[in-house]
Amino acid sequence: MVWKRKHLLGMEDLEVDEINLVLETAESFKEVSTRAIKKVPTMRGKTVVNLFFESSTRTRTSLEIAAKRLSADTISFTANSSSVIKGETLIDTARNIEAMNPDIIVIRHFAGGAPYLLTKYVNSSIINAGDGAHEHPSQALLDMLTVKEKKGRLEGLKLAIIGDISHSRVARSNIFGFTRMGAEVRVAGPATLIPIGIEKMGVKVFYRVEKAIEGVDIIMMLRIQLERQKGQFFPTLREYSRFFALDVKKLKLAKEDVIIMHPGPINRGIEISPEVADGPYSVILDQVTNGVAVRMALLYLLAGGGSLLNSES
Amino acid sequence: MVWKRKHLLGMEDLEVDEINLVLETAESFKEVSTRAIKKVPTMRGKTVVNLFFESSTRTRTSLEIAAKRLSADTISFTANSSSVIKGETLIDTARNIEAMNPDIIVIRHFAGGAPYLLTKYVNSSIINAGDGAHEHPSQALLDMLTVKEKKGRLEGLKLAIIGDISHSRVARSNIFGFTRMGAEVRVAGPATLIPIGIEKMGVKVFYRVEKAIEGVDIIMMLRIQLERQKGQFFPTLREYSRFFALDVKKLKLAKEDVIIMHPGPINRGIEISPEVADGPYSVILDQVTNGVAVRMALLYLLAGGGSLLNSES
Amino acid sequence: MVWKRKHLLGMEDLEVDEINLVLETAESFKEVSTRAIKKVPTMRGKTVVNLFFESSTRTRTSLEIAAKRLSADTISFTANSSSVIKGETLIDTARNIEAMNPDIIVIRHFAGGAPYLLTKYVNSSIINAGDGAHEHPSQALLDMLTVKEKKGRLEGLKLAIIGDISHSRVARSNIFGFTRMGAEVRVAGPATLIPIGIEKMGVKVFYRVEKAIEGVDIIMMLRIQLERQKGQFFPTLREYSRFFALDVKKLKLAKEDVIIMHPGPINRGIEISPEVADGPYSVILDQVTNGVAVRMALLYLLAGGGSLLNSES
Repeated sequence: MVWKRKHLLGMEDLEVDEINLVLETAESFKEVSTRAIKKVPTMRGKTVVNLFFESSTRTRTSLEIAAKRLSADTISFTANSSSVIKGETLIDTARNIEAMNPDIIVIRHFAGGAPYLLTKYVNSSIINAGDGAHEHPSQALLDMLTVKEKKGRLEGLKLAIIGDISHSRVARSNIFGFTRMGAEVRVAGPATLIPIGIEKMGVKVFYRVEKAIEGVDIIMMLRIQLERQKGQFFPTLREYSRFFALDVKKLKLAKEDVIIMHPGPINRGIEISPEVADGPYSVILDQVTNGVAVRMALLYLLAGGGSLLNSES
Repeated sequence: MVWKRKHLLGMEDLEVDEINLVLETAESFKEVSTRAIKKVPTMRGKTVVNLFFESSTRTRTSLEIAAKRLSADTISFTANSSSVIKGETLIDTARNIEAMNPDIIVIRHFAGGAPYLLTKYVNSSIINAGDGAHEHPSQALLDMLTVKEKKGRLEGLKLAIIGDISHSRVARSNIFGFTRMGAEVRVAGPATLIPIGIEKMGVKVFYRVEKAIEGVDIIMMLRIQLERQKGQFFPTLREYSRFFALDVKKLKLAKEDVIIMHPGPINRGIEISPEVADGPYSVILDQVTNGVAVRMALLYLLAGGGSLLNSES
Repeated sequence: MVWKRKHLLGMEDLEVDEINLVLETAESFKEVSTRAIKKVPTMRGKTVVNLFFESSTRTRTSLEIAAKRLSADTISFTANSSSVIKGETLIDTARNIEAMNPDIIVIRHFAGGAPYLLTKYVNSSIINAGDGAHEHPSQALLDMLTVKEKKGRLEGLKLAIIGDISHSRVARSNIFGFTRMGAEVRVAGPATLIPIGIEKMGVKVFYRVEKAIEGVDIIMMLRIQLERQKGQFFPTLREYSRFFALDVKKLKLAKEDVIIMHPGPINRGIEISPEVADGPYSVILDQVTNGVAVRMALLYLLAGGGSLLNSES
């Protein structure tokens, strides 16, 4: 199959073949990062702009490393940059960047839909690196790559996503992706943090973690956004941890070969106990490693792809 | 002609031949940014330091992209960097940077004359990327390149610069540049924002926009620095907009093939109406594109130049 | 001799042969920075991550330039990056970076021992770029390179370090390094700023600058951390300057060919008079130049070294 999409805005409309192509391309690129010379000339002379309106260490760094390993030039903009402070609109900022002839613009924005809006106004390829509570497709793809590596497949697996489902773009993108690939997806969390009607996305809803993780192959813990909580959604962090954190005891209810995922950064002792985060079932750091490979694959495919064989040095 | 200047501090003393050489070199480089591989090896192994004491998205990014397309290494310093916070003097900061053997130092500083001061203390080539209300020569050169592209020439054209003339380094540099090249320059704005005696720079002064733009080929709108205004210069933004903003109605007074420029970032609805900013006469985004080309030309010429033909890969 | 160390955490346990190897390698690299093309392909395709939990202009820039001149890719993290704000632990941050397969992690941290802690949790090579009041080994090595260049040797020289000895990682690293190489080290400062028992490090303690610099070959002035002083350690800056600043008069007590060093950024008129900082004995800017060379050497040796001859292009 050949990649035809110009942008990557979300998992919602990605087809099975497209997901498979990204994962296979990422597998090929993964090897590059373990070489002594971690670099292929594939994107030499291409410009990738990172336009980040929300702070991020992990995603921005992962993207920057991915771009550099493909030999692309990278330029980073952050929300405290002056034009944003000076009150320029998102579209004007984007059109100005566009005028400098980048090949790909990667955007993270606090407003859901911002990346889609950009596609109407600029000609570059757009990658959504997280938009509000909407989607974070490269996170879902790196999660899927990690599961595929560990389990050999995605179809037929049982995945439980635990935590603040309402505000999580990671949850949404993974629900779209895993259900599309034939996995069973369960969500669990406090009733205040599970959107009404989420069953329509094809998931099973649980309000007790113990029930949700019974017999699952994968547990994905979401981060509690400490900076956002002010007691509206649950009484105290301590109460949240007591009922919803993943600890060794709860873990026993899952399958024996369960894997534990977390998009990071983790709050040790809040949504996940240190024993679990660092334990033998955790694949949290594999996710990070796979993040670089998936983003290399996405940049590569959106920049025009072509034969991987020819493009390696 | 051969480029002999070591620094680019302002338009005030640039000769006609020098301006033409920059514009012609920029035209050659412009093509590089439209290639699939947007890179020439011209400045491989050269180091360009961006030393920014005022925030900037556009100029800094434009310079970084220009340097990378020439294969130079770039290092960026910003005003919130620690040495500045720690109270080091400008000259000590610059001499320290110099000791790391950069080839070119690009400086933006809130004090007029800072780039000139540096030339007395360091050996590197200095590019002024904006100093107080004094000069911003690379902006004027990209403006001139844009006009030349659209009109085929600079000589004999009529240019109206509208807005806060007093505090605008963009206005000053363009006045020097366009008058030197034989264009007629008019300035207009509230009387409080037009410096007394500016006629000595060879411009015509107007206090009504309608009069200033009558029959002109080019209108250059300046940005109202919202962050600076506190009612000293005009009563309210609304009043300013009413009298000085460029809208479709006022636009009709100019020549039929007038072009509209703005150094950005624009304040939509304040100094320029969205219909005009996005309309058919606007060349605002061409200015941004030309900014990269002009800065490639400047870096190239100051780094030693040589035959462009040989330097391309 | 062959470099065998994986990390550079401090000067405390560096052997004479190791110090000599770093200095000799730095001497070879120094020439690279004076070439027209300031770049060797030695570290092409290697990734260097700068992880800075304290602000720094000089050290971070010096490292970035060093890495780029070796053709390595660099990624910078700073303390205001989001993961740190979001409350991730140091070890989790480091393990996440590690998962992206960097070759070398350079860390600056406000807590002494942080770089050592990292070595227990990550597999990359770690360079300590300053940890609390503990060590700053690359600074000591660049200081030693500067002295060796100016004096031809280290053994038998007399060095006086003046200022806030208690809080200075620069002082500690230099004490370890210079005493190891057979130099005599003296320290001087207000009694409140000299740690009790420092004689055990093999130094002579003075409370009067005049006595300390009598007959020395090298004077190293330390920076007064203006931002830290609140009157606990000395009554006023003026009083400090009066007694401890290096001025032309005090300077006469040293040897005729004394050299003056300072790790920067300097506080003109506080710990050092402008006449001395800019005078003929000052080697402060040589230190900065040598910083790039020493950091090239360290990156090169920690990344696996090999024959310098073969690695140059």
